[in-house]
Amino acid sequence: MAEADSETVDLEIIVQGAQEGKKQELRLWLRMLSTTKLVSQEVRRRLRAEFGATLPQFDLMAQLYREGDGLRLGELSKRTMVTNGNVTGLVERLEADGMVLRVTPDGDRRVTVAKLTPKGEKLFGTMAAAHEGWLRDMMADVDPAVIAELWKDIGEVKTSVSNHLSGVDFD
Amino acid sequence: MAEADSETVDLEIIVQGAQEGKKQELRLWLRMLSTTKLVSQEVRRRLRAEFGATLPQFDLMAQLYREGDGLRLGELSKRTMVTNGNVTGLVERLEADGMVLRVTPDGDRRVTVAKLTPKGEKLFGTMAAAHEGWLRDMMADVDPAVIAELWKDIGEVKTSVSNHLSGVDFD
Repeated sequence: MAEADSETVDLEIIVQGAQEGKKQELRLWLRMLSTTKLVSQEVRRRLRAEFGATLPQFDLMAQLYREGDGLRLGELSKRTMVTNGNVTGLVERLEADGMVLRVTPDGDRRVTVAKLTPKGEKLFGTMAAAHEGWLRDMMADVDPAVIAELWKDIGEVKTSVSNHLSGVDFD
Repeated sequence: MAEADSETVDLEIIVQGAQEGKKQELRLWLRMLSTTKLVSQEVRRRLRAEFGATLPQFDLMAQLYREGDGLRLGELSKRTMVTNGNVTGLVERLEADGMVLRVTPDGDRRVTVAKLTPKGEKLFGTMAAAHEGWLRDMMADVDPAVIAELWKDIGEVKTSVSNHLSGVDFD
């Protein structure tokens, strides 16, 4: 994670002056981006403080928790924001801690999947409940009706963005 | 950037089943996060395709554009999502391309600041206009009134989150 964590200045404040006269789509984007960064930083801080865990570890465990039969490392990389190279290191670390197991599923000896151990499942359950509570706390001052409206409206933005992707894979 | 870019699966879809019965704050957060990632990926793709530039380069130039007198590298790191170590490499690369200049301001010979060259300013102006246009395009299907409402409501979320940070710097 190449982020300058806690000392990061609020991006939206920095561009404040530059925002005058700017199109409202840009202003909305800067606000969304800075809010997302703020929440991510707080989640990262709490994961570290309360569980000694990193956000990539949490994301990876979340995917394995969803897929009881396990996932191949390439699939894990796609489903998280973690590159292929880093997934291997993360899985090895979690394996050493007894949270993850690598197994060869029946029928295909060439394949290896990672899955949570019972210990890993238990820990993730605790972390996920805490994570949900942190979000509830962070949004405590927002009216529930506003939260419901936001969920719907951001859904509209997401659909629009999906409809207007350049569609070209430049990689 | 440790992101698995174009092949990344939609995070919100992955957790869909797990969302039932979940608190609406968590659902909103997952939607915000996945939308932000979708837009960031598209911006990254277009920067690369149209300008051969990366998102960290764009962010860094944006900060220098705002500060005509230049910024110290440490300050640049704080204002972007780029770590101290990576800022140096980025600045050197932009300097080699004639976009950035490192200078010693009058009065303090121990300090070096980076600033945009006229060529860098011109390029950034073009990029910023394109960036604004991409966002307008991406949100084209959303009613302007919804965009205005979103800007206000996300502002409420941001204020609430700011008020409920753990306040402890665990770094």
